[in-house]
Amino acid sequence: MKKRILTSAIPSHVGERICISGWLQSLRQMGGITFLILRDGWGTIQAVTEHAQELAPLTEGQAGLESLLTIEGLVVSEPQAPGGVELHELHIEVVLPIQEIPPLSLNKRKISANIATLLDHAVIANRHPTRRAIFRLSAGVMASFRQTLSERHFTEIQTPKIVAASTESGANVFELDYFGRPAFLAQSPQFYKQIMVGVFERVFEVGPVFRAEKHDTTRHINEYVSLDAEMGFIEDHTTIMALLRTVLAAILAHLTENYAAELTLLGAQMPQVPEVIPQIHFADAQELIYQLHRVDVRGEPDLSPQDERWLGEWAQQEFGSAFLYVTGYPMRKRPFYTHPDPQRPEYSNSFDLLFRGIELVTGGQRLHRYDAYLAALQQAQLPIEPFEYYLEAFKYGMPAHGGFAIGSERLLMQLLGIPNVKLTTTFPRDLNRLVP
Amino acid sequence: MKKRILTSAIPSHVGERICISGWLQSLRQMGGITFLILRDGWGTIQAVTEHAQELAPLTEGQAGLESLLTIEGLVVSEPQAPGGVELHELHIEVVLPIQEIPPLSLNKRKISANIATLLDHAVIANRHPTRRAIFRLSAGVMASFRQTLSERHFTEIQTPKIVAASTESGANVFELDYFGRPAFLAQSPQFYKQIMVGVFERVFEVGPVFRAEKHDTTRHINEYVSLDAEMGFIEDHTTIMALLRTVLAAILAHLTENYAAELTLLGAQMPQVPEVIPQIHFADAQELIYQLHRVDVRGEPDLSPQDERWLGEWAQQEFGSAFLYVTGYPMRKRPFYTHPDPQRPEYSNSFDLLFRGIELVTGGQRLHRYDAYLAALQQAQLPIEPFEYYLEAFKYGMPAHGGFAIGSERLLMQLLGIPNVKLTTTFPRDLNRLVP
Repeated sequence: MKKRILTSAIPSHVGERICISGWLQSLRQMGGITFLILRDGWGTIQAVTEHAQELAPLTEGQAGLESLLTIEGLVVSEPQAPGGVELHELHIEVVLPIQEIPPLSLNKRKISANIATLLDHAVIANRHPTRRAIFRLSAGVMASFRQTLSERHFTEIQTPKIVAASTESGANVFELDYFGRPAFLAQSPQFYKQIMVGVFERVFEVGPVFRAEKHDTTRHINEYVSLDAEMGFIEDHTTIMALLRTVLAAILAHLTENYAAELTLLGAQMPQVPEVIPQIHFADAQELIYQLHRVDVRGEPDLSPQDERWLGEWAQQEFGSAFLYVTGYPMRKRPFYTHPDPQRPEYSNSFDLLFRGIELVTGGQRLHRYDAYLAALQQAQLPIEPFEYYLEAFKYGMPAHGGFAIGSERLLMQLLGIPNVKLTTTFPRDLNRLVP
Repeated sequence: MKKRILTSAIPSHVGERICISGWLQSLRQMGGITFLILRDGWGTIQAVTEHAQELAPLTEGQAGLESLLTIEGLVVSEPQAPGGVELHELHIEVVLPIQEIPPLSLNKRKISANIATLLDHAVIANRHPTRRAIFRLSAGVMASFRQTLSERHFTEIQTPKIVAASTESGANVFELDYFGRPAFLAQSPQFYKQIMVGVFERVFEVGPVFRAEKHDTTRHINEYVSLDAEMGFIEDHTTIMALLRTVLAAILAHLTENYAAELTLLGAQMPQVPEVIPQIHFADAQELIYQLHRVDVRGEPDLSPQDERWLGEWAQQEFGSAFLYVTGYPMRKRPFYTHPDPQRPEYSNSFDLLFRGIELVTGGQRLHRYDAYLAALQQAQLPIEPFEYYLEAFKYGMPAHGGFAIGSERLLMQLLGIPNVKLTTTFPRDLNRLVP
């Protein structure tokens, strides 16, 4: 056999005999013609023959679907074939025969299995081209996030996931046994990324975060990948909002440029990111909902999923924007490190970014004066002791700073119109699911 | 005040008045001249004045070390100044005054604090230029690892850190409460990266791993960043060894090209990576130790730290190489998924890479046939049930594959000659340390 090439390289070898290896994704006969689809790590190729003896190794080797094959063949241009090329004059070698029937079908355009079957058998389901496309896009999102921030002088950090005190609140944390002492899984790198603003001013992290939320919804998972950024010497939260706009636009442009096949396969509708994303103050948003829908949520401390959907629709109709900033969430529902709005101290210098009517990003300005932290902890009736290490950063000088956290899986869910966030990650963790 | 520029941009503004912001790192008088060092997220700049009134804002604002300042000044070329430029004709503004004396000195060339003080106050110690240099190099290692593998058609993945079964063994795992069920923190992404070879063939992951090792040594931490790669359709473990050589050479070249200042500051001795890294079989290594040192370790199932040091010295003397592959570790000490050497089945198709006499990377070929896994689990007296999800990958066809895991912190420790691995990470976790 010749040296193997990847399926992605085949189109540049028309007229040559080449060798490929991969999984037998489908095998069907039409009249006297047999069509094989071979899948490798990057794509698929159709191999075609009318000669039974070319297929003999499959029969002799009892090689069913998902068998590993090496096929040598002639690359022929064929406009009707998927990808515009196919292989003729086949020489097939069975590398590893499989007789077992896969738990779900990998050779249909869409996976027909229900979500439970798909997730139970994610190990195999993830081989399906539509699943692979999602995870490739996920890699593209991470790569673009890092590149965009690196170009803007941010330093990548990795911070501990086993922590002594929870960042956000006492609830919703996973507890673990740390050599006989209680410890927790980090709900976010919030404290550490702030501390590292004191070191590098501008930092980002891509890593897992853990939320022990007991409700099982279509938009929550218990472990997800957070795209975190934090920067110092800001004006206020609007500096962060401008940065986030840049990052999102860069990610979407990167996907459009480099992942056209995946986006087409998944039927993605790519949104435009406006030069300036429209924004509305929290209080005005509640007033607007009252005016438009006659539902009175004024005075509520937070927005409900329904509120977010209404606001998303409004942003689309009013500004043609899939994105909407809601600013100034009430201080009483934001964590203690949140910076108040100097003009209206009951509201905060914080924001959520809604994307197609769902919260995608939370961010804002943080407190940066040591005294302000002491007061905020007292106000929140939290003890100082567990936070002393964190407070040290502020004791020795921190600039005005802020940041944001993008839920990587939610971004893909909304971008691709996937109905359940669990489907955007390779091996989701939820209330009932610890395997695969 | 003018618009702020970063210290890294100052050398291109000689003769201009500019504005910088940052932390007051040092302040000292010599004769009638006062020297200030201001530090921002990227570097430092010396500001010099003979005029007391230029310094008046510091006195009036009671601004001690680590105060946040904005300084406007004229950029003057001065060969004797650190970096070759300094600021004159100062206009100083105190952004945030600090009176508290920092718990350790940030304005000496080296940190004089002992390791316990340094780690207890890592929040502040990490601001020291030598600490920053380490973490910047860490970011460079991650970036180069990702880039090198992406160019070679690897896909980045993120896999779960909360897992149902431990990968390597029952020992040394952190247990946590997952909604009333026991779960564990992943000791490595081993199972998941193998499974994903069935999806993308070539995958990598940069992420935290957790080891509940109860011994407190200078080369162990309980949470670290693992640089993992895994690929399919390999010949055997030598395919992986060649890939690892490429990756290491790329990382070192990347650091040399892009982090010269950091490497100089830390006094790093950059090693050459030989075109072909010398290798020795495990059994031959034990024989060699006996011949050279008259210590008989033949028949031991593993190498001790002293054995590794001896082998490192030998590789340096014999081949002038800081790197040495030890291949063929005995099967009985390797995890159950290890592929045996077909010629000598008591030894494995696995390797360790020693760097300057310490194990830096572990890797090898894995089993890939379903039947081989069933036999290996039985041999290891492990039950099948907890591994069923993992075995599904092999049931439905996996190619010959293998991979490696580089300990990111160990790489920096050995590269920089740092005596304790805890010093290579921002906020280390050890037997006694959960904060900061």
